[in-house]
Formats: sequence, structure tokens, C-alpha cells
Amino acid sequence: HVLDAAMEEIAAASSGVGGAKRRNAWRPPMLILRTPKGWTGIQELRGEKIEGNFLSHQVVAPNAREDDEERAALEAWLCSYRFSELFDPRTGFDADIRALVPKAGSRMGEVLPDVAAPQLSLPAADEFAEDAAVPGTIGSSSMRRAGLFLKRVFEQNKDARNFRLFSPDETYSNKLDAVFGETKRAFSMRQEPWDKDMAEDGRVIEILSEHSLQGMFQGYTLTGRYGLFASYEAFIPIVTSMVDQYLKFLKGAAEVPWRTPLPPLTYILTSSGWRQEHNGFSHQNPGFIGSMLQKPGCFVKVYFPPDGNSMLAVLRACLASKHVVNVIVAGKTQEPRWLTPKLAAKELQQGLMTWDFASDDRPDIVFAAAGDYLTKEALAAVSLLRRDAPEVRVRFVNILELSALGFGSESCRSPLPLSDYFTDDKPVIVNFHGYPQTLRQLLPDGCSGRFSIHGYIENGSTTTPFDMHVRNETSRFHLASEAAALMVQSGVIGAEKGKHIAEAYANALSRHGDYIRKHGVDMPEITEWTWTNRFSS
Amino acid sequence: HVLDAAMEEIAAASSGVGGAKRRNAWRPPMLILRTPKGWTGIQELRGEKIEGNFLSHQVVAPNAREDDEERAALEAWLCSYRFSELFDPRTGFDADIRALVPKAGSRMGEVLPDVAAPQLSLPAADEFAEDAAVPGTIGSSSMRRAGLFLKRVFEQNKDARNFRLFSPDETYSNKLDAVFGETKRAFSMRQEPWDKDMAEDGRVIEILSEHSLQGMFQGYTLTGRYGLFASYEAFIPIVTSMVDQYLKFLKGAAEVPWRTPLPPLTYILTSSGWRQEHNGFSHQNPGFIGSMLQKPGCFVKVYFPPDGNSMLAVLRACLASKHVVNVIVAGKTQEPRWLTPKLAAKELQQGLMTWDFASDDRPDIVFAAAGDYLTKEALAAVSLLRRDAPEVRVRFVNILELSALGFGSESCRSPLPLSDYFTDDKPVIVNFHGYPQTLRQLLPDGCSGRFSIHGYIENGSTTTPFDMHVRNETSRFHLASEAAALMVQSGVIGAEKGKHIAEAYANALSRHGDYIRKHGVDMPEITEWTWTNRFSS
Repeated sequence: HVLDAAMEEIAAASSGVGGAKRRNAWRPPMLILRTPKGWTGIQELRGEKIEGNFLSHQVVAPNAREDDEERAALEAWLCSYRFSELFDPRTGFDADIRALVPKAGSRMGEVLPDVAAPQLSLPAADEFAEDAAVPGTIGSSSMRRAGLFLKRVFEQNKDARNFRLFSPDETYSNKLDAVFGETKRAFSMRQEPWDKDMAEDGRVIEILSEHSLQGMFQGYTLTGRYGLFASYEAFIPIVTSMVDQYLKFLKGAAEVPWRTPLPPLTYILTSSGWRQEHNGFSHQNPGFIGSMLQKPGCFVKVYFPPDGNSMLAVLRACLASKHVVNVIVAGKTQEPRWLTPKLAAKELQQGLMTWDFASDDRPDIVFAAAGDYLTKEALAAVSLLRRDAPEVRVRFVNILELSALGFGSESCRSPLPLSDYFTDDKPVIVNFHGYPQTLRQLLPDGCSGRFSIHGYIENGSTTTPFDMHVRNETSRFHLASEAAALMVQSGVIGAEKGKHIAEAYANALSRHGDYIRKHGVDMPEITEWTWTNRFSS
Repeated sequence: HVLDAAMEEIAAASSGVGGAKRRNAWRPPMLILRTPKGWTGIQELRGEKIEGNFLSHQVVAPNAREDDEERAALEAWLCSYRFSELFDPRTGFDADIRALVPKAGSRMGEVLPDVAAPQLSLPAADEFAEDAAVPGTIGSSSMRRAGLFLKRVFEQNKDARNFRLFSPDETYSNKLDAVFGETKRAFSMRQEPWDKDMAEDGRVIEILSEHSLQGMFQGYTLTGRYGLFASYEAFIPIVTSMVDQYLKFLKGAAEVPWRTPLPPLTYILTSSGWRQEHNGFSHQNPGFIGSMLQKPGCFVKVYFPPDGNSMLAVLRACLASKHVVNVIVAGKTQEPRWLTPKLAAKELQQGLMTWDFASDDRPDIVFAAAGDYLTKEALAAVSLLRRDAPEVRVRFVNILELSALGFGSESCRSPLPLSDYFTDDKPVIVNFHGYPQTLRQLLPDGCSGRFSIHGYIENGSTTTPFDMHVRNETSRFHLASEAAALMVQSGVIGAEKGKHIAEAYANALSRHGDYIRKHGVDMPEITEWTWTNRFSS
């Protein structure tokens, strides 16, 4: 009754000429239903009030099996529904009850994505590709690329109305604002003259509550439609517990025959902890990927696209995937381009890839990295080593995808032959975007001893980008220094030379400390560093 | 002004004769302050409204260094505070400003726990000890023990008023209701005749919002007082992100000289996923300990007391600790007693311990377990193996404490000589309370190959307690079966015998499946199992 009145009020405000105008001065109805706790359960037991009291939250009649009084109370409650009046053992439920059941095709859980809403139409990833013929060319922002791609997704699916972008942050701040060339932020109240990029039919949902967005995101995709959730990396852990529960639903849904695979939940974690020179320590938290990567099963994939072209390939693959939670970790700053669209596609297929332009045959040591900023530092370490110890043969492996099964487990396939990438016995120095423990848990049995994992070790602050690497020992100097020491151990370089190299890098770190305290920004040798192929074999 | 009026209203309602009575019919004032977004920042820039508009959430004048217009706007804003009227380079701040600064001792962050509130007085752990002279005696509920201990803590600190219990669940449901013998749940509104254990000065804070409780818990302990947060294990992940931020604060606070160590945040995670036969899959989530154990540093400790006596020792140690987040994982059901108070204290000191009553010298294989229910299954596996393959020499190691540094890192000391527990080269079968990945990340370098970790692999359901172990391969039959296979490999038992054992355990699992489908409860051989020392060396 009250529900009907509310629905009518909404319909009246929404329809007809001037509907939208009326709505601007209008507040939608909000219903509050207040019920007793334990409503319609056992009313009273042994003189204690149950319904409407905290006792209804316990196991109310725990001994009903043996206790006559409890069993009588349980029976009285269940019989109060007068089930026998509604159900006949011969003819089944009566017509009133049967009329309540939705028709086939409209039943809860029966929503077939391919039927309920059109498939998402996706542009080709390389439509927005950057020229990366020369690896290391500066000028790639993964988020800018993603923004252009998403604008096209909105265009291609305009009539289908089956795609939305959800974000607790400003779409501007995450550099995805190219989408506003095609759609706006949803807003149905009165607009002020200074408001921008807001519209009643906008398909971007911005609200500073990750919890609300997560609920809407789940609900929306459950209808067979598609979405993307973009957030600051450090704040997405606030919905960890909701995603945990959604993953349980995905697992359960995969086990019942009448459910078709659902559209994916894809998250972009950006404004990463490695580039938080304004916001500082509170904005440095890679914990979400750790929480996700400890979930057994095939329902989570975490991607670390190292540049714009790989971001495009990953984003397209994620939006085309089914019945999975995808997490994409990528920065929004201008960084080097590493991969052509073709190489990006190849790496995506494998989950990880040896980068030939930075690798020698028969390596003495392997560098590996997961994450854009960490990849850049690892390659800078490779170039330092090539300059200072050219006799060391180096391989560089980029890790694009992780799941709870380990490296490169696309499609939940069996583990890759990791020795193809990491050799059988050479030391491996990994520069990892998250906590070292997060990667450590995924290392294959028996090889953890030769993997040295660098990552975020909670030494955060409001400081320069390079200083974040220095504090967390993920800087080029830390990596190259460790490599030199290992190469002394294995006899590839002499002890004396090793000592000189270690001193040079220690001096560089000390120079860095002095410089940032004086100037408040990183040294030119850091900010202006670019990869050169000069030393490449 | 408005603030003063509100304070006066509260004071009037609280004080004098009949104050409490009046309060029952009275709603406390609630103030809502609505401010423009970006209040008092730059008002306008290049004709665009900044204050009161979304643009104030961006970096407002990003090019102030080079751009004259931006710099002028920035300067105009900063000068609007008329700093020069408040501060004189020679004499410092003027008297008005100085009067705002609290006196030494009352300054924010200067709260010295030992001064602001009395130290927490703690009873001895063994005051509530259970007789565990015969290991395996049934009749230990960790939560019941904790409840008795906490009741005494409330008694001993009654006058100091410096301890509170926080809980989103019912204290009854978590079996901690012994505390109601000494204090009540805080409630300051009107009470109904059927309300129980509620009082205006109650020191138990129950509210079904982990977020609100976390905020109150932090605020309360920051004043130098003490608390405990008890929650269902599966729902505490909802505050992961808040605890992440608190850990950052702990780290920061440890680095400034004028902060003394703070009282600990201690969590009890109970109603664990292994015993959720009523609630099922949604209540099975050990993710919180994984999130905590990936935090580098010395600010998190996770404890898995295997029985009531160890629970008492751990709870006492946690409440006596400083500047740390403690997580205690323990069940509430009746389970076996394993340790005397003396042994419990010894294990707590080391973090892990070989249980002599279940161990042989010179073992061929090591069983290990972390978590009460997992310990019970591992010991049941040991007893199976002793019955069916008495020639196998077995050791049992219980793991009580984990931190991001690994096993038994009490006081953040350097790693223990783990080979003392796990040998140098024998296979180790671990039965772990959480996700296997959570423990895997803590394994020492190079030894992961011989550790087989069983744990919660997300195969949850509404099912019997033992079936949870079967589904997740943490059952006695799974562990003993794997051990037998390993012992065939190392030649300790013959292939033929190994085959017979494997068949017997497979049959037991199949019998289990049939039985629970028919009866809805576990087989008597499971529910009635007790440890016997008969086969002990």
C-alpha cells in the first residue's frame, strides 16, 4: 500500500512534460520499515520474551529434539503459517501462491546475461595504441589510454545502455575524464551554473562511498550489464569484505547448472602508493591485491600492465571476460612506453614475458618486475649494471598477471614452465608493486631460496616519487647493488670491482638524500633518465 | 555558540536528581555542520568557481610556480589569513593564539598512558586454568575461559574504569557472557522489562557495526585505557582498511620521541569458519589474518591458542602488551585440553613448541598445526598413523604465534632455529587455520618445497564440522593418507602396506559422506574420538 503510493509518486514525478523539472524541486520518497527483532518467530519461551527481544538472535530452541516445551513452541510457530491451507500433497500449491512465482525467464537467478542485455561491444585495443617502436620513449599514461578506450566503449554501446563506470574518486583525478566526451556523471537533482559534466542520464556513477558503489556495481552486473570500478589503490581495501562475499557467490553460481557465467567485476586501482607525493603515507596501501591473491580458486586475476599499450590489451581482455573479479593496477602519470600492441598481446597471453630488448642469452642473473613503476626501476637497474659491469649477462622478465595459482594463470591453466623465464638455478631479483609477502606466497615450491623480492615494506611518507623507491629498497641503486654482490659471489665480477660498484651506488643514494632535502624534488639524473638500447645485445 | 548550547543541554540532562530519568525521554542533541566543499580555499580562478565546487578537490593551482595568475590567487588566499597580524618574527605568536594552545600534558598526542589512566591490573592466567594433566581430556572452551578471565579483569579494574569490551556480536553468542557477572552492556535509553544485562554504566559496548566499534576502540585506547574487540572471524575483514590505517599510525607514533607506547588493540576472532554448521559459507572467511600477516614490521601478532589454558596465557600476554595489534583466533565450542598452564606459558614464550606427548625422537615426518580445530585433526592423524603404521616415527609441532616475520617472532626477535622444530630435511605436513597462502608467505627461504600446507581452500558450505575438514582436505584422513604416501616414498613403510592404508582412509571418507547425508551429523567415530597416549613413545 505504502509501496504503491511511493511508486506512483515516483512515476508521476518522472513522466510527462516537465517531469524532470518537477523532480528538481522534489525529494524522492524514502520508506523506513521498522520491525520487531525476530519478527514472526517464537513469541515466548519459558516466560521469556523472544520476538522483539535480543533472545531471538540466539538459537531459539536449541534442545527442541529432546525438550517437549521447546518442540511445542517450535511447532506452534511453524503451524501458525497454516501451510496445509496453502499446499495440498496431491495438487501442490494453490492458485494464489502459484500466481506469486514469476514466469520462467523472469525468475531470480535466472537472468541470462546474453538475453537480458546485449553483449558489450568492444573496440580493438590497438585503435588507441601509442607508438612504442623504440622502447623507453616517454609519454605513456595508462589511465589516459584507458579513458580513450572507455569513451569508445560508451559510444559503441550507447543504444544498448549496458555499460557504466563507477568511481568513489573524481574521474578527473584518475585521468579517465576522456569519457566525458561521450557521457556524463549521473545527477538528478538541481544543477548549478558552475556544475560540469553532470547529466540526468549520465552513465558515470561518482559517489564518495566505495561501499555504496560496490553494491550498485554488483547489482548492475547481475542484471547482465557491464561495469568498471576505478578507485585509488589505497582505499579499495574498504570493500575487501564485500568482494570476499561476492567471490563466494561467484563460486556458488558456477556450481549450479541453471546459471550462465556473469559479466566480470573489473577494478582499476590507480593513484598508486608509489606516486603519492602530495597525499603521503595514508594513501600508500597495496593490501587489496594481497587479500585477493590469497583466495583459492579461479575467480580472481590481478594485472600489472607496465605501460599504456599493455593497459589497453588488459582492459579489453577484462571487459570481455566472464565470471571473474579482475583487478588492474596501473598508474596515471606519464611514464615510458615499452611494448608495441603486438608484444602487449603476446605478454597478456602468457601472463609474463622475457623482454628481449633488455635481455642477453644465457643470463647470469634474472631481473623481474610486476607493476609499471617497479618495471621502470628494474630496467634502470639493468641499464646501470650494463654500464658498470657489462660482463654480466642479464635477463629481464616482466610479470603482467598473477592469480592465487601463481604466475600467468590465465584461464586457470596449469602452471607455466617457469624455468623458461627464471632459469633453473640463477638468482632472481624481483621488483614487486605490492608487499613482498603477497608475491612470496605465489612462488613455486622449492625456488623461493633464489628469489629476492623487493616491494613495498610500509616505509611510506609524503616524499618524492624516487624517494619512495629508496625508502622501500625498490630503487635502481638497491637492485643493481644487490645484483653486483650476487655476481661477485658467483664469480662473474671480481671482488674489487664489486666493491667499487657498491660504493658508487651508495654514494648515489646519499646524493639523492641531500638533493631532495634541498630541492624538494628528485635529482635530474632520475627524472630525466630514459632507457637506451645502446648496451643491448 | 551552537556547540555551547548543546553542551549545556547535555550537562542539564545528565546532572542532578532525576537526570537519568529525564534522559530516558530525551534525545541528545546532534549537530550537523554543512560547509562548502573547499571552504576558505581559492574562491575563483580564470572565471571558474573553485570554493563550493568539485574543482576544489583537484590540485587547485598546479602551475603556481610558473603561472602568475595562479600564484596571485594562491597568494591572495594565504594572505587572507592575515598571518602577520597574529605572528611577529621577534616575539612569536600573539597572546590570543598562545591561549589556544593546551598546557603541556594536555596536548594532543601527548597523552601518556601511564599517567592519563591507571595501568590495567591483570589476574594470573592460571587462576582460571583447567586440569590438563592428561592431554586430550575433553571439556575446554577457549571463549568460556576468556569470559572468566575478563570478568576478573573488570573486577580488578572496577575503580580505575579503564577497560571495555567491544563487540558487534552478542557477547552471549561468543560465549563471553561470564563478564555480565561483573558489568553490563552500555545502554542509556529507556529499558524494557524484558531487557537483560543492560545498564547505563555498562562497560561492554555492543553495536552491530564493526566500523563504529573500531572507531570507538581506537579512540578509547588512545586515551591510555584498555580494550578488547571480540568478533565473528568472518566479519572482521570489514574493518581491514581501518586497521591498516591504524597500523600506519602505530608505525608513525613509534618514530616520534614524545609518544610513549600505546595500549594494544587486541582482537578475538571466534565463531570460526571451521564450526559454522548453522550459518554456512558466508561465515567462513579467514581473510583478516592474511591481510594482517602481510604487513611488514613488528606491529602485528596473530595467535592461535590450541586450547583453554593457552587461550588464558595468550589473552593475558596480549592485554599486557604495548603498541601492537594482537589477533587471537580461537573457537567457542567444547574441545580437548592439551596443555598445562606451565606448558602453555612455555609455548607462548617460543611461539611454537614440539608436543612431547605426541612425538617420537628422530622423526621420519613432522606434523604441524596452527589453530585449535586444525590441531585436533592433526593429532587425530598422528594417532591414526600410530595405529596403522607404528613403525613411522612422528613429531608434532604446534604453532601458536605468527607475525609477518614468520613463526614465533615474539618481541620481533630474529627468526628461531626452525630446524629444531621441523628438522633439516624431513617432510612437514601443516594443518593451518587460514588460507594456505597466508602461511606459505611466511615460510623460510628454501624450505617451502618440503612443507605441504593444508588449510581453508574456500570449499565452504552449511555442513557438519568434520565435513568442513573433509571438503578442505584438512581432515585426519587426508593428512594421514598424505603422510603414508610420503613414508612409502622414503621407504619407511612398504608400497603394499601404503596402498592398504590409503584404501582404508578413502573408505573412511566415503563412509563419512554416506553417514552425514543420512543422519545430518558426524559419525560417532569422529564425534567421540579422543586422544590416547597408548601409542606414545
